[in-house]
Amino acid sequence: MAGCLAAAALLAACAQAPLRGTGDLGVVVERAAGRLQLVETTGARIIGQVPGLGDLSHASVVYSRDGRYAFVFGRDGGLTKVDLLRQAIEKRIIQAGNSIGGAISQDGRMVAAANYEPGGLKVFATDTLELLADIPATYGDGKKSAKVVGVADAPGNRFVYSLFEAGEIWVADLSDPKRPAVSKFRNIGKEPYDGLITPDGRYYMAGLFGEDGIALLDLWNPAAGVQRVLDGYGRGQEKLPVYKMPHLRGWAVAGTHAFLPAIGRHEVLVVDTVGWKESARIPVHGQPVFVMARPDGRQVWVNFAFPRNDTVQVIDAPSRRVVQTLKPGKAVLHMEFTPRGEQVWISVRDDDRVVVYDTASFASLKELPADKPSGIFFTTRAARIGF
Amino acid sequence: MAGCLAAAALLAACAQAPLRGTGDLGVVVERAAGRLQLVETTGARIIGQVPGLGDLSHASVVYSRDGRYAFVFGRDGGLTKVDLLRQAIEKRIIQAGNSIGGAISQDGRMVAAANYEPGGLKVFATDTLELLADIPATYGDGKKSAKVVGVADAPGNRFVYSLFEAGEIWVADLSDPKRPAVSKFRNIGKEPYDGLITPDGRYYMAGLFGEDGIALLDLWNPAAGVQRVLDGYGRGQEKLPVYKMPHLRGWAVAGTHAFLPAIGRHEVLVVDTVGWKESARIPVHGQPVFVMARPDGRQVWVNFAFPRNDTVQVIDAPSRRVVQTLKPGKAVLHMEFTPRGEQVWISVRDDDRVVVYDTASFASLKELPADKPSGIFFTTRAARIGF
Repeated sequence: MAGCLAAAALLAACAQAPLRGTGDLGVVVERAAGRLQLVETTGARIIGQVPGLGDLSHASVVYSRDGRYAFVFGRDGGLTKVDLLRQAIEKRIIQAGNSIGGAISQDGRMVAAANYEPGGLKVFATDTLELLADIPATYGDGKKSAKVVGVADAPGNRFVYSLFEAGEIWVADLSDPKRPAVSKFRNIGKEPYDGLITPDGRYYMAGLFGEDGIALLDLWNPAAGVQRVLDGYGRGQEKLPVYKMPHLRGWAVAGTHAFLPAIGRHEVLVVDTVGWKESARIPVHGQPVFVMARPDGRQVWVNFAFPRNDTVQVIDAPSRRVVQTLKPGKAVLHMEFTPRGEQVWISVRDDDRVVVYDTASFASLKELPADKPSGIFFTTRAARIGF
Repeated sequence: MAGCLAAAALLAACAQAPLRGTGDLGVVVERAAGRLQLVETTGARIIGQVPGLGDLSHASVVYSRDGRYAFVFGRDGGLTKVDLLRQAIEKRIIQAGNSIGGAISQDGRMVAAANYEPGGLKVFATDTLELLADIPATYGDGKKSAKVVGVADAPGNRFVYSLFEAGEIWVADLSDPKRPAVSKFRNIGKEPYDGLITPDGRYYMAGLFGEDGIALLDLWNPAAGVQRVLDGYGRGQEKLPVYKMPHLRGWAVAGTHAFLPAIGRHEVLVVDTVGWKESARIPVHGQPVFVMARPDGRQVWVNFAFPRNDTVQVIDAPSRRVVQTLKPGKAVLHMEFTPRGEQVWISVRDDDRVVVYDTASFASLKELPADKPSGIFFTTRAARIGF
């Protein structure tokens, strides 16, 4: 009888987590509630919630290579491993005082957290969240520590990131986690505030807060050092008011061109990635925040800074024209495409909802309730470089 | 007590299929045995087998968008839906007399089978395998039916394919499965024998058996019609003996260049995808069969036709030099990269094994036993266009 009860209890646990694939799952971050909504894109529906994740403002998420676990980097230094199948926290640690994001290694064995306070990069095992490596961001006389920003994964189990106060880009090779090999690129420009890696893992770019331009590192040719490109990029001569510094992760690469938010202007810049020169400017509705390519690169979707943040525009990539203007609602914060791009999910913070659009017809397909939603992250990111 | 037994029975079923993510799963086709080996790339190991799939020579596989189900297109016209989690056949139908491959729609709701005998495209619901649409490949006076080859998915729930005897490319829009809208491009060249779509879903290309050159359709500009490119591509003037017609799906697109097998020559061709002109030829070990780019595009891996099919070579994409020659064993048939490219799995038919290589060090990491393995297909394909 005891065996029967045990079997029944196990069965109950089993029944609570039915078998299912993880390729169509994702999370919506509810920033104020410190909670994740778990979603499934096939049915465009919410399948559960996981609360208790602390301060989730500016939270970012990466996925285990099997798509089962989300690693959530919170602003409060929390690193939480969430099981999407059991809909529960697997493990949660407070790894720093203040964190700005993270990345997962190519082999899926390590997650790296980029920290503000204290500055530095911490690397954890994905299975246990055990600390594997702690790389301080010391610079200058070796007594000062910089904020680490813009961490991205690169092929070869490397993490690439920028040191804000130091004006440096570091490449940490974690092939042997016990002996990280760090290459440092100095004098790359003043105050790098964010970074991204191109979808092919080749170029790392850091945006500069302290001056104009972008610092560019070709990871296929690191001996060439960091180059300065797009000298006009940044606040520019006119010192326009900037309502929100755009995320560099919001850049889109479609074919041989990158589409990126102009800073302080109602424009999207088009840059030829062969030579990294500006080739066009597209007038848009407001100051762009995220400029994201649909997975096939045919469309580029743009959201905007306050006070024009009720709108999303769609640019046709080959003709470089705005072909659609949508009004999802008050305070559009983030967008995420389904794996093959037939839908886009848009978080509308002040209307407490996520709106799902068909990217071919631009029809609104569904609205899902969410409490002040911000980032949306689908498991497809597990299989992609630089996410 | 009966309830207890029922609970125990259910529990046993539950225990047989433990909860797990599907992002790191895949199958290895055992062609002669009509069986799939189910594999997991995180541990580089075999997790099970599913037999009873009929004739699997030249079988191809696509995945449901959640990564749970494999759809296997057999040469014998069989279409089998396999559940990777329960490790069992979910449903199997014989849908035609002779089939050459298939594709899955962007929204994941339909699979399309390209048939030799009788010719035509059949479209099935992924949930039930119910027939949704049957599009005969009639041409000329409307009484003849062509073999359908080179079917690929395109954004907008379209399937693009070629008609061998007719020399036509058809684009079938299945947005409304009950009313397929078919656009026909005629006189595209003699005897298209295979086709592929570029990773961005923009270009469909058909190789021609009956003459030199490639038929190219720009799906972003279908009004321009089908263009002929690479006029020298094909058997060419010298009529070299061709041991095996290379698969067009074996083309690699890395950055702005495509790497493709020369037909009948010991060369890989490099083609500038802006203008589709040949820009270089790389001498290699034998007649190339598959020419595949690592997901980051930095490396291109090549296998070869009989009698040089014990070898694999690796080309460094930017320098266009062969940087490594490996000898995996007798009769290398196929290669598949892990989602972010840190490993490649290679099937070695006549040595009855799959060899897993580290793509950075070229070290052989593991050998897995398999009975005459041919195609290897990982679930990552679910999230990609043209797979």
